[in-house]
Amino acid sequence: MPGGFCPTDSEEVTEVKFETIAFRDGKLVILDQTRLPNEEKYIELKTKEDVYDAIKKLMVRGAPAIGDAAGYGLYVSVRDSRAESLEAFKKEVGETAEYLNSSRPTAVNLSWALNRLLKRLDSFTGSVEDAKQLLLDEADEIFKEDVESCRKMGEYGLTLLKPGMGILTHCNAGALATARYGTCLSPIYLGEEQGYGFHVYADETRPLLQGARLTSWELKKAGVDVTLICDNMAASAMRKGWIQAVVVGCDRMAANGDGANKIGTSQVAIMAKEYGIPFYMFVPTSTIDLDTESGDDIVIEERDGEEIYRMWYEKPMAPEGVKTFNPAFDVTDHKYITAVITEKGIARPPYTESLRRLVHEL
Amino acid sequence: MPGGFCPTDSEEVTEVKFETIAFRDGKLVILDQTRLPNEEKYIELKTKEDVYDAIKKLMVRGAPAIGDAAGYGLYVSVRDSRAESLEAFKKEVGETAEYLNSSRPTAVNLSWALNRLLKRLDSFTGSVEDAKQLLLDEADEIFKEDVESCRKMGEYGLTLLKPGMGILTHCNAGALATARYGTCLSPIYLGEEQGYGFHVYADETRPLLQGARLTSWELKKAGVDVTLICDNMAASAMRKGWIQAVVVGCDRMAANGDGANKIGTSQVAIMAKEYGIPFYMFVPTSTIDLDTESGDDIVIEERDGEEIYRMWYEKPMAPEGVKTFNPAFDVTDHKYITAVITEKGIARPPYTESLRRLVHEL
Repeated sequence: MPGGFCPTDSEEVTEVKFETIAFRDGKLVILDQTRLPNEEKYIELKTKEDVYDAIKKLMVRGAPAIGDAAGYGLYVSVRDSRAESLEAFKKEVGETAEYLNSSRPTAVNLSWALNRLLKRLDSFTGSVEDAKQLLLDEADEIFKEDVESCRKMGEYGLTLLKPGMGILTHCNAGALATARYGTCLSPIYLGEEQGYGFHVYADETRPLLQGARLTSWELKKAGVDVTLICDNMAASAMRKGWIQAVVVGCDRMAANGDGANKIGTSQVAIMAKEYGIPFYMFVPTSTIDLDTESGDDIVIEERDGEEIYRMWYEKPMAPEGVKTFNPAFDVTDHKYITAVITEKGIARPPYTESLRRLVHEL
Repeated sequence: MPGGFCPTDSEEVTEVKFETIAFRDGKLVILDQTRLPNEEKYIELKTKEDVYDAIKKLMVRGAPAIGDAAGYGLYVSVRDSRAESLEAFKKEVGETAEYLNSSRPTAVNLSWALNRLLKRLDSFTGSVEDAKQLLLDEADEIFKEDVESCRKMGEYGLTLLKPGMGILTHCNAGALATARYGTCLSPIYLGEEQGYGFHVYADETRPLLQGARLTSWELKKAGVDVTLICDNMAASAMRKGWIQAVVVGCDRMAANGDGANKIGTSQVAIMAKEYGIPFYMFVPTSTIDLDTESGDDIVIEERDGEEIYRMWYEKPMAPEGVKTFNPAFDVTDHKYITAVITEKGIARPPYTESLRRLVHEL
């Protein structure tokens, strides 16, 4: 299991396989994911410019991990502040947060984490030094909640899986996207600890290849049996009877259970239905948006076609000026989703009721 | 429309957009497909070594086009023979055919075309010069039959399509795979001539990217409106209502209508069924194997994983030593196939009867 490196459970250091993000001995360290899978390089983020660049350049990515980086990142950006009054310090923190927030404006967890720290500071009265400690405490809290949430999703998810199962996943909703464990890969790590002996199949996930570069890297690193396939080979694996469950993450879920996730997820869901294989979506309750009625209301980002025909290649792999359609996400209709696994429990159809109940549960 | 360059209809030269293979003024010329889409370079094949290399290195590919190249290739390899007796000439031709046949042993059309020329020569009595002409005549015959077969498939296929339709295709079963027109792209070229205004969506077709490199190149070249997508984006295009028909080729069809084609084809078929979109497979009757009962009896070639994680990249895109599953083809179950289009007509379910009838029809 990708182990801990955070100050609160250093006894796990012997289990460390890699760390997406860690704060220890006053140092904020991240794994530079842009170098994966060819190089495992950790870098320390010392200044606000370091933090800004790391988020902007996707050295750290995945909604929960960005939140973790933002919390600790704001702290390290202001801990050497020479502000002589609390008021001056608060002003400096506010400006720094605004700067960091501009690194990746569409990442919800970025502003969410920064706002948590700002809100905590807002009501604080005391010394500047104590205010700095307050920010660190809140960053720690965000990190610990992320670890705990992933562990819970893993425990709930594992109740749906059986030893020896073949499990297909798409994109990366793993330890590299969170503080630890991941969302949909969490039950796989937990199962691995308990000797479940899963066989995981990782879709490479075109065009950005998160499955090839990240998922197969982190699972292999943890000793999990993983097989890399192209996105168009999933049906062949299903037809052979190799897949007994599909697990995927989610970027945003509507009130009716329609879930937006990495492009290609909906195709996997349709095939799973066709082959009678359960399809499980792992969704922290913070990702469930009860104000969005259905998937039709979720706007899908379309990206530059160069990602399809040029990004990884020395020469373009399509004719000059070819038209492209490059949606970053797709919507999986709730009718294809067997169950939604959250940190608070498992939701089953009809989702309009079960999701609302879970979100409002304390 | 990709036009003709063969001696029999030189009046079409003004329409030429590109030529996969052509024999004119005594020269055998092919388009070197390994340079596409970045360079359109034609090379003359003058010797048996040229022909061998062109087939082996996939400069010319696609079952029908390989047959065409083999026919003309055998002729140019022996036309300068100094054999002084017919017997000596026949021996030389036999040895040359054996050599050419070893360039790509699994390509059925290669041995099929060579054997046609050998058989014709076998029963021949006359001068060596006349024997050479006989070989050229048979090569011309193969080429013309290919053109005619593709045109017929185009005409039958076009009866299934309507102006303005959005049409999805996978891999390349186009003019680059045949003497002209292609199999499943033939109705698109015919429709284009008649102002149908199709909107074609081309799956890039991982891992070898035939859709990006070849299909989008040849359609764009012919002025057809084509949009390139990754294989995992097809469901998104279908969900948007952009696709009204799917057209694909076939590498081998069993007696029950199960069709083996490029990996990923079966996924497109499953999605088409889910979205209520007709799925058409274009299958020359020579590709229908009535001795194979069902798709379960078709052996699927598995290829090296390096195609998935290394081929197009400067650095590997997956961790060292990762396991892969890389089938070159998959089997589309007949239950997903709306109709099978051959050069003799259209087969509809139940295929066990309709295919047999078509194959045995004169």
